[in-house]
Amino acid sequence: MRRIGILTSGGDAPGMNAAIRAAIRTALKNDMEIYGIYDGYKGLVDGDIHPLDYRDASEILTRGGTVLGSSRLPEFEQDVMQDLAVNQLKRWGIEGLIVIGGDGSYRGAQALNRKGIKTVGIPGTIDNDINGTQRTIGFSTALNTICEAVNKLRDTSYSHHRCFIVEVMGHHCGQLALWSAITCGAEVLINQEIGYSEERVMAQLAIHDHFRNKRHALIITAENMIDIQALAKKVSEETNFSGRAISLGHIQRGGSPTPEDRMLGSKMGKEAVEVLMRGEGAKCICLIQDRIVVRDIDEALADTTRDDEELYDLFNDLV
Amino acid sequence: MRRIGILTSGGDAPGMNAAIRAAIRTALKNDMEIYGIYDGYKGLVDGDIHPLDYRDASEILTRGGTVLGSSRLPEFEQDVMQDLAVNQLKRWGIEGLIVIGGDGSYRGAQALNRKGIKTVGIPGTIDNDINGTQRTIGFSTALNTICEAVNKLRDTSYSHHRCFIVEVMGHHCGQLALWSAITCGAEVLINQEIGYSEERVMAQLAIHDHFRNKRHALIITAENMIDIQALAKKVSEETNFSGRAISLGHIQRGGSPTPEDRMLGSKMGKEAVEVLMRGEGAKCICLIQDRIVVRDIDEALADTTRDDEELYDLFNDLV
Amino acid sequence: MRRIGILTSGGDAPGMNAAIRAAIRTALKNDMEIYGIYDGYKGLVDGDIHPLDYRDASEILTRGGTVLGSSRLPEFEQDVMQDLAVNQLKRWGIEGLIVIGGDGSYRGAQALNRKGIKTVGIPGTIDNDINGTQRTIGFSTALNTICEAVNKLRDTSYSHHRCFIVEVMGHHCGQLALWSAITCGAEVLINQEIGYSEERVMAQLAIHDHFRNKRHALIITAENMIDIQALAKKVSEETNFSGRAISLGHIQRGGSPTPEDRMLGSKMGKEAVEVLMRGEGAKCICLIQDRIVVRDIDEALADTTRDDEELYDLFNDLV
Amino acid sequence: MRRIGILTSGGDAPGMNAAIRAAIRTALKNDMEIYGIYDGYKGLVDGDIHPLDYRDASEILTRGGTVLGSSRLPEFEQDVMQDLAVNQLKRWGIEGLIVIGGDGSYRGAQALNRKGIKTVGIPGTIDNDINGTQRTIGFSTALNTICEAVNKLRDTSYSHHRCFIVEVMGHHCGQLALWSAITCGAEVLINQEIGYSEERVMAQLAIHDHFRNKRHALIITAENMIDIQALAKKVSEETNFSGRAISLGHIQRGGSPTPEDRMLGSKMGKEAVEVLMRGEGAKCICLIQDRIVVRDIDEALADTTRDDEELYDLFNDLV
Repeated sequence: MRRIGILTSGGDAPGMNAAIRAAIRTALKNDMEIYGIYDGYKGLVDGDIHPLDYRDASEILTRGGTVLGSSRLPEFEQDVMQDLAVNQLKRWGIEGLIVIGGDGSYRGAQALNRKGIKTVGIPGTIDNDINGTQRTIGFSTALNTICEAVNKLRDTSYSHHRCFIVEVMGHHCGQLALWSAITCGAEVLINQEIGYSEERVMAQLAIHDHFRNKRHALIITAENMIDIQALAKKVSEETNFSGRAISLGHIQRGGSPTPEDRMLGSKMGKEAVEVLMRGEGAKCICLIQDRIVVRDIDEALADTTRDDEELYDLFNDLV
Repeated sequence: MRRIGILTSGGDAPGMNAAIRAAIRTALKNDMEIYGIYDGYKGLVDGDIHPLDYRDASEILTRGGTVLGSSRLPEFEQDVMQDLAVNQLKRWGIEGLIVIGGDGSYRGAQALNRKGIKTVGIPGTIDNDINGTQRTIGFSTALNTICEAVNKLRDTSYSHHRCFIVEVMGHHCGQLALWSAITCGAEVLINQEIGYSEERVMAQLAIHDHFRNKRHALIITAENMIDIQALAKKVSEETNFSGRAISLGHIQRGGSPTPEDRMLGSKMGKEAVEVLMRGEGAKCICLIQDRIVVRDIDEALADTTRDDEELYDLFNDLV
Repeated sequence: MRRIGILTSGGDAPGMNAAIRAAIRTALKNDMEIYGIYDGYKGLVDGDIHPLDYRDASEILTRGGTVLGSSRLPEFEQDVMQDLAVNQLKRWGIEGLIVIGGDGSYRGAQALNRKGIKTVGIPGTIDNDINGTQRTIGFSTALNTICEAVNKLRDTSYSHHRCFIVEVMGHHCGQLALWSAITCGAEVLINQEIGYSEERVMAQLAIHDHFRNKRHALIITAENMIDIQALAKKVSEETNFSGRAISLGHIQRGGSPTPEDRMLGSKMGKEAVEVLMRGEGAKCICLIQDRIVVRDIDEALADTTRDDEELYDLFNDLV
Repeated sequence: MRRIGILTSGGDAPGMNAAIRAAIRTALKNDMEIYGIYDGYKGLVDGDIHPLDYRDASEILTRGGTVLGSSRLPEFEQDVMQDLAVNQLKRWGIEGLIVIGGDGSYRGAQALNRKGIKTVGIPGTIDNDINGTQRTIGFSTALNTICEAVNKLRDTSYSHHRCFIVEVMGHHCGQLALWSAITCGAEVLINQEIGYSEERVMAQLAIHDHFRNKRHALIITAENMIDIQALAKKVSEETNFSGRAISLGHIQRGGSPTPEDRMLGSKMGKEAVEVLMRGEGAKCICLIQDRIVVRDIDEALADTTRDDEELYDLFNDLV
């Protein structure tokens, strides 16, 4: 393969630039040409395609977001759009494509693969919700941002005998909530896996209120689960804590990537180029037990095993 | 004066601990006794009062919140509550009282003063909305937190051609919005002083969209002004930007105080003790043209001059 | 086992408090008593031992350092000191001991084990230099601190066409240097594993200077390798860069632990208690392929395999 | 005046970009042309001069360093170099020049002014050591960086009963040391204004060691004052603290500017353009009592009044 392309799609995530940088430099080191496709599948269809050189990879490793831009294009499910994309790639002589994004982006990659373009996916999303890999690029940074924000809430919470209900991102996946509950020392966790029951939450809170005489408490909830304002009101009415709700919002998507995300992005970007160099396609790069593994996209997306039992036990033991 | 008390009241603000530390150490250096009153006027009425010594001032300078705790007690407007407070102070032999908080807290201090307790107020609130002083303790840190949060939004904004509408705190005062609009480089500012008009906002946005071809834009609005979700929707519909709204919320109240807030708190805490040492009361500590000034509370609260014209010009010139 | 002890020894590392917290809570949940031994083996010999309860684990998860204090006590190699320690433990009725620290601390734990005290080691050091585990508590936070410091240098480096030589910690191990070189995007790496040759460094620098026309460059070196001031002088004399040297020093040991270190410390602290609950001793807790593994201390310390070849390849490909 | 130039000179400082941005936008708003001169006086002599437009001011407000680059050029004291510079400016039709830097840079500006170029200086240096202004751009950010670094040291200091001797920048001026001693809560301060005496330092330390039983202590010293390693050794030998020395180095020059420096840079950049618009020269922009003031360079540089007595009193009272 002589010429490959790279795009980022869906929600951006810190560390995507590390993957882009690694792909550029690995391709150039191996005498391949690499083209940047801007604003995701939209730019692919529109032909917003530009050659990348060594310097395009400079000064981007430490920056959040994606220098290639991103977008959501639901219409890319349509055959006609995919054909436009294939035509663009052929026009530019691009034989292989690296797609950094979530599972929606992976489905686009599969469609292109079926139409003769070798594709390889890199899991880039803060939500850590992609089947087949234990970790996605951006998760570490988002977790770090949550921890820093909760640290700030802690000061004011302690001063006012408050219970903060903090809503974190995760789309329909409870990973960010679970990890942040453990690493921020939350008293209560609400997410998709353990569900929500008002009685449980109020009972858990009561332990910290009455028996442990705590000056503040922290409830972490995944988004798309509950009405956090209503719960805050309930807490104020039924406990000695003053309830306050905050949704951390889009700050969780930004920030300079942590070393972990820079490392993960670098490894995956390099590996993706090597997959294309070997002429393979319909693959995705995964992290399993701290090792980079190349899997078939179909197989990875079908792999719904996720063993978080140990983490739930840990949360329960340390609360 | 041999024995004084100190309390924090209303919303907490980073740098309050610097003022508490300075008050403790200045009092002890001058052979006065100083007592901490916990959880604001509530603790005063309840007699939650404890002597403070040198070590109570250790390790608190760098921490957000207030180690004395705070609360809101609207009932303190009532004469009967004030009498309870005076009785507590007399019981403990406390002749002078330092109150750190906002204008509500100042009114409580005035009431106590009328009943024979020498009081001195220190302006502690992130909102910078206290008459008579150009700066309040906590404003610098809140501004810093806003700038950091907006930095994170910028990454993701750039990647997605977005316009973020960021709602910042300030109660009914536009100071945090004004300062953060200038220091974050916002394209549009909405606050109490300049008001809101949809036409203006959309027209200003259009300049950056059409003529300057910007990849992202930032609108900063004070709280209690607009429905930010509705504006985000409008932006998405009527411009090329994808509108997103975020309310930064209580993270603005927390965090380790900036050097500026540590310095301001230290100066004001020291000055407040010296006012009581001189046997004065019904005073408040102000910052005017970067100088610590002692004013009568009544006079200060009545001083509604605030000359921000230069800052609005600056914002308009740099946008 | 009814009563256990816990101490931290050697250099402190962020995340040690997470392990202490997890050990306290896990022990209490399982109806064991747990005693804190202050200032490491010194406090053990001196009998500076105090019971820990639920609240001793509160508010410590997010703090750097170790709330138990630490010290270095080379004399603990002597039999007589170890006997004093055993007597103290027996006097307090402590049957098992958790030791958080580096390999020196592990050797103390082995000695105590030979004298009848069940011991379990937790790897706590920023250097990531303990045999038998792929990761130590504190490494992630130190790496993060290095990345943040280098980010600050980058601004000023770019402005002045500079080459910074940054010396990072690691004791006699090149792990921090290797990881930070990759995640900070260094142009040149010097550490114990790849050694130092002036010709190599100047040749690598020349590529970035002449061919790539870079405005700045970054050399990362492990401590105990070279005279960084001398290299800076050389760089200034023989390249177009202005050389500057900085040793990051002890800031690398501090800071609020990253989520990764909080998680690792939490898992290891819990596991260590469970090892003692099972009546086992002479064990240490390791992380291998992202999994918590319990190993014999002897076996772990003898395991010198460390496969970083992939990381060196990655660094070379991305430079 | 139709066309002006701008350059940054000497050590870079965070907030210089805010001044550059403000100058660009203010000039363009007033229908003036503005040219960037790269790498300071060196670029001026070499003719490294480029027009700046609206977009050159985008995305730079939040970045440390200077996008115009900087350099030191001692030879610019020579008449022949100054003539080369004047010729370049005339060739480009540049009638007025904004120089951002320290007092060395100001002297260059004065020389050019004497040769017919209208010049205006903006004080840009982290050292806060320019006569005639109470604050320089970059000081707030450097102070903030120092506070963050000391926070990290505090964790490890507390764990090990340590006394850290922290050397901060400041060139030959004690401002950064004084302000950071107050805002970091140092026990001992050493700087140019109060000098160094070993007896004083050891006596002050002894108070905290013996009487206050502190677990750690902090000495802040300005650079160019003492051998910090020697003092650390002394502390270890003669007190109960374990002495450690750290020189914070160039990280103090970097980092995203604080809101205060962004604001100060913005105000000064705007004012500088307005000075040139009025056809004035040989001026510099100062901050006095929180107000922007335009002064003659000669007069400002001769103004050696600096009243820090209040701050030294504050430090002494709070220690």
